[in-house]
Amino acid sequence: MTTTAAPTVPSYVQDQWWTPEVGEGRPILDASTGEEVARVNTEGLDVTAVIEHARTVGRRSLAAMTLHERALICKQLGQYLTERRDELYEISHRTGATSRDNLIDVDGGIGVLFTMSSKGRRELPNANVIQDGPVEPLSRDGSFLGEHVLTALPGVCVQINAFNFPLWGMLEKFAPAFVAGVPTIVKPAPQTGYLAETCVRMMVESGLLPEGTLQIVSGADVDLLPHLDYRDVVAFTGSAATAQALRSHVNVREGGVRFISEADSLNAAILGPDAGPDTPEFAAFVSSVMVEITAKAGQKCTAIRRVIVPKDRVDDVARAVADKIAAKIVLGDPRADGATMGALVSLEQLETVKADVQRLLAAGGRLFGSLEAPEVLTADGSRRVVEAGAFMSPVVVAFDDADVDEVHDLEAFGPVTSVIGYSDLDDAIRLAARGAGSLVATVCTNDPDVARTLVTGIAGHHGRVLTLNREDARTSTGHGSPVPHLVHGGPGRAGNGEELGGVRAIKHFMQRTAIQGSPAMLTAITGVWHRGAPMRAAGSEKFGGEAGNVHPFRHSLADLRVGDAFVSDLRQVRLEDITAFATETGDEFYAHTDQQAAEANPFFPGIVAHGYLLVSWAAGLFVSPAPGPVLANYGLDSLRFITPVAAGDSIRVELVAKRITPRVTDEYGEVAWDTTLFNQNDELVATYDVLTLVAKEWPTGQ
Amino acid sequence: MTTTAAPTVPSYVQDQWWTPEVGEGRPILDASTGEEVARVNTEGLDVTAVIEHARTVGRRSLAAMTLHERALICKQLGQYLTERRDELYEISHRTGATSRDNLIDVDGGIGVLFTMSSKGRRELPNANVIQDGPVEPLSRDGSFLGEHVLTALPGVCVQINAFNFPLWGMLEKFAPAFVAGVPTIVKPAPQTGYLAETCVRMMVESGLLPEGTLQIVSGADVDLLPHLDYRDVVAFTGSAATAQALRSHVNVREGGVRFISEADSLNAAILGPDAGPDTPEFAAFVSSVMVEITAKAGQKCTAIRRVIVPKDRVDDVARAVADKIAAKIVLGDPRADGATMGALVSLEQLETVKADVQRLLAAGGRLFGSLEAPEVLTADGSRRVVEAGAFMSPVVVAFDDADVDEVHDLEAFGPVTSVIGYSDLDDAIRLAARGAGSLVATVCTNDPDVARTLVTGIAGHHGRVLTLNREDARTSTGHGSPVPHLVHGGPGRAGNGEELGGVRAIKHFMQRTAIQGSPAMLTAITGVWHRGAPMRAAGSEKFGGEAGNVHPFRHSLADLRVGDAFVSDLRQVRLEDITAFATETGDEFYAHTDQQAAEANPFFPGIVAHGYLLVSWAAGLFVSPAPGPVLANYGLDSLRFITPVAAGDSIRVELVAKRITPRVTDEYGEVAWDTTLFNQNDELVATYDVLTLVAKEWPTGQ
Repeated sequence: MTTTAAPTVPSYVQDQWWTPEVGEGRPILDASTGEEVARVNTEGLDVTAVIEHARTVGRRSLAAMTLHERALICKQLGQYLTERRDELYEISHRTGATSRDNLIDVDGGIGVLFTMSSKGRRELPNANVIQDGPVEPLSRDGSFLGEHVLTALPGVCVQINAFNFPLWGMLEKFAPAFVAGVPTIVKPAPQTGYLAETCVRMMVESGLLPEGTLQIVSGADVDLLPHLDYRDVVAFTGSAATAQALRSHVNVREGGVRFISEADSLNAAILGPDAGPDTPEFAAFVSSVMVEITAKAGQKCTAIRRVIVPKDRVDDVARAVADKIAAKIVLGDPRADGATMGALVSLEQLETVKADVQRLLAAGGRLFGSLEAPEVLTADGSRRVVEAGAFMSPVVVAFDDADVDEVHDLEAFGPVTSVIGYSDLDDAIRLAARGAGSLVATVCTNDPDVARTLVTGIAGHHGRVLTLNREDARTSTGHGSPVPHLVHGGPGRAGNGEELGGVRAIKHFMQRTAIQGSPAMLTAITGVWHRGAPMRAAGSEKFGGEAGNVHPFRHSLADLRVGDAFVSDLRQVRLEDITAFATETGDEFYAHTDQQAAEANPFFPGIVAHGYLLVSWAAGLFVSPAPGPVLANYGLDSLRFITPVAAGDSIRVELVAKRITPRVTDEYGEVAWDTTLFNQNDELVATYDVLTLVAKEWPTGQ
Repeated sequence: MTTTAAPTVPSYVQDQWWTPEVGEGRPILDASTGEEVARVNTEGLDVTAVIEHARTVGRRSLAAMTLHERALICKQLGQYLTERRDELYEISHRTGATSRDNLIDVDGGIGVLFTMSSKGRRELPNANVIQDGPVEPLSRDGSFLGEHVLTALPGVCVQINAFNFPLWGMLEKFAPAFVAGVPTIVKPAPQTGYLAETCVRMMVESGLLPEGTLQIVSGADVDLLPHLDYRDVVAFTGSAATAQALRSHVNVREGGVRFISEADSLNAAILGPDAGPDTPEFAAFVSSVMVEITAKAGQKCTAIRRVIVPKDRVDDVARAVADKIAAKIVLGDPRADGATMGALVSLEQLETVKADVQRLLAAGGRLFGSLEAPEVLTADGSRRVVEAGAFMSPVVVAFDDADVDEVHDLEAFGPVTSVIGYSDLDDAIRLAARGAGSLVATVCTNDPDVARTLVTGIAGHHGRVLTLNREDARTSTGHGSPVPHLVHGGPGRAGNGEELGGVRAIKHFMQRTAIQGSPAMLTAITGVWHRGAPMRAAGSEKFGGEAGNVHPFRHSLADLRVGDAFVSDLRQVRLEDITAFATETGDEFYAHTDQQAAEANPFFPGIVAHGYLLVSWAAGLFVSPAPGPVLANYGLDSLRFITPVAAGDSIRVELVAKRITPRVTDEYGEVAWDTTLFNQNDELVATYDVLTLVAKEWPTGQ
């Protein structure tokens, strides 16, 4: 251990690197060796200027791009960081993280950048206004409609992060905020903020970040909350106690600051009654508990803290887990070859966790494992007790009384879990709910009825529930790993928050607003054509086409505008057409072939045309056959058949460019066409969206 | 005015009517006459027992039904109350509400019951687990999936309501909570709680309410918050100050109680620069401001408080609104024939509002109107000053300085509005945002560009924005009226809450939980078939069909199970089939007719079959032609074409019962069939859902 003061971790504020000119700072030590790694100090930082910079410069940068453009930058940042993973791994080892832990923190964090990028571009429009849900007709004549839109929050996102996942915690909040259009200010945990700072430095050096969109404040005592208001979001990860303190700030209580929190929770894993010691489920369950106790040395808000098993299996399970740990886990300096579990983040943390275990034991727990300072594998390959390293052996604590308060209320934030017994499924549900709101639970069973009973019984108390059985034991992403596709968060003690969850994550940084108005106005606001808004129609003059208008399939994306339309003439459906279609397709359903049976059907007047005949003919009516910018019809959405078409009726089609989505990485984009079939009496026959790919320019390469 | 003590408003708790045996209670007076109408008192109420009753008996009653069954009860309650509207109108008049006001409160409240019922049954499954969003593949081999489900919150909903809309406020919260499966405890505002109590009495007498699902606590000083926890929701409507006080309760700050609040806000109406005095927009704008000042005597959290107009039109608009009021509004006892604006709720409220107006005047406002006690139309038809009635003439206050703090911060909760001027659109946006979060704004313009700029500029600060122009002036539901289809709520000062919004309202009372597992397990939990879960297939033995299995179209809803499937044999597509289809449908797109041009297309190998040919043939492959329980194919969802099919290729289809939704009011239900087309190499050709109506029993009437 050296006594030389390490350099202060700089802050990146107002698009510049900054370190204070005064103050000693707080020393941060290597978790495994006790060596001083860095100092943390932000004395004299102008916090108001930091927030103002994000509000003005940052917001302006982001508003100048679309959702897809920002999403693409996320992907590029992910690629840039992927190339520099090794440097991040190296630094991460100083925090006590093993190579396996780095997969969660470093690769997991970069993974969020990729997922938000691809889902944002695939599932959201290439715009800055997102439609949310269906259009609601609010007047009989169609002149007044309502719907919902999402737009970026008009403020900033302040992250307050936990020490355990300095990169994942930062990137899983940054990526969705950035795609939404909200600038980020990171406040990392001081213990591991030097790793977050390294990552921010790379992101800045990439040249990909627009001005003002990311700042990091590398201090221990900076308080940003007094400067925030209703436009802003605080996204917090950490202890339930800190979450409560922050939520009590006047600007949250009264000022309308949005507060998302993910707090540690006493997550349960329930072993089904069917999963006896010889089943694949039992083995998978024991492995899962072992992994969750030891990954990140148990310093995970998603770790399994309460193992809930049939009453007569408490000791079997506790012993099996302890045995598995003994067989598999090598405690050591993460830089040592072969170490599979690292140190806690600090000696203080070690003392706290040991004291918590003593409280569990005092409450009636029986210890499987040891609280003695363990021998560990050091970086030089030797095996010894390292007093300056925050090492602890994993421990399992078994209880005879499942209702001991400490089991359900006391979170030992380290390699510790409790095992308790249930009498029946209702009792298991009751015990799981005693966590008073958790991030995640595992239900391990191969019986679908048990799974349904347990999962629906505990779902209201949980943000995520994983079912584990022989089918997914090998492919499961694991109890403790939030995936960017699914929400992370939970009610009650877990913080009452929600993050991630695919594009939901992006929407968390947007305001939902109901908008009402005429079809023309809603079209102007959303950029999406609404039925009833003006059209520029080609085609049949009888039905509104104008001779001067070009068929909309002849427009490339560069020319096409929402409202460009084609209207066809009527085409009569004869009985012989229906009969021939039935014969050729093989679809001889009685409603198309048997007049008497069709008449007996409650919905049909007699023989009617196949719905598939109608949409096929509609394509024949609207298509523009020669090669052109419309490259393909890749699908169809929300087809509804409304009025049946009998022999002798006629149909016509209206096709209107509704939604235009240029792809940022391709030479074409997606166009959704609002398609309506009418009969000769102008009654609605069918409505749907035709989905096409359209070239940006035509001829291509223009 | 009489001095006889009126009867105490009873509470309905634990499925019984209850009045306290001690205490005098607080007298409640008729708004127009000052006569004592009722007393309010709950001394000695056992609040713990009330909540426990909801938690146990109420939750059990609701959990025994499905979403559709509960939604149907909402409709029946709506019908029952509709028949008794006249009694509610009569009692409502005592609160100062006119007949027009009653349309909002009584009819509007009943309308929420109907809308939640119909949307709940149309848009949600007939079950207790709702899938939320798409299924996410989380492993390459398909054995591990993730998705989200919603289940009822495991607690109770406590409503704390405002005095101004005692019925609407109660029913707009009750209906969605009830449909979701969450019991309600109503705490009405004491001033108008007798009206809420009358409505609850009718609902109880209807015999439609299951045990424990609705209770009302008719007291002024009851505090339910100390008894609530993370399972529960408090849904509050009232002043921003009260919202802040409630949000500061330890059970909200630290206990995880969910808190939804709608607070009064300083809502804006912006007149576009194009809407000069002679335009239809100007007239519609003036009418709208007039309505919003006078409806409910301006005691609406959605009223227009800030009229934002071009700088040179401040006085024009103020005068036009004042003139319109003078011409249209007759102030009087709501029971008097011809009265179009009633009294404020109480003399205390009257004094508060007048004092607020004085503050606006002291800050530089110019008064259009009068603060003198007005002559009003009384119930006996005379016109005089009624000292005991809380009457006030509507007033408009115009400002030269648009940035006066009082305009943006001080809410005079009565018939009062301020008029200020903007210099350009950015200034108008800035001024609207000075409300620091509002429920609703009106943007009045006939210029789509102005609409887009203003609406997207202010959306982030608002829960709802209405665009008003000549197209929707007559059909608009109005600035001040939340509709059940759209969200009600707003950021910041408006309470940071969200209610209503169609089925969103129901989902607000449910917990979102990510679930992960194998296809079989997710099928068991959701009741919806997931690709990869076991099937029971009829059809081609070569592709998994079993001889003993019946074609799934032969099962009525009573017999059909998710996973029941049909698998077809392969059918070859020949070039002449494609050509014939092109000729018959008229769809002669070059990809189906011109080998050379098709080859030049980036997505096709050469001539390919029409997508519509493939889905038509698929129907021919899977259909079971004879009359049976499958009554109709009413549509198709999410069709995607994946691998093109060239001449010589073959296709086959797999059709699996995915989602079964029996309708509670019909003899049939909806079945969605997961449909997959494969080619001869088992590559995915297309995926979609076929939507059918299937009889509950077959033969019918069995």
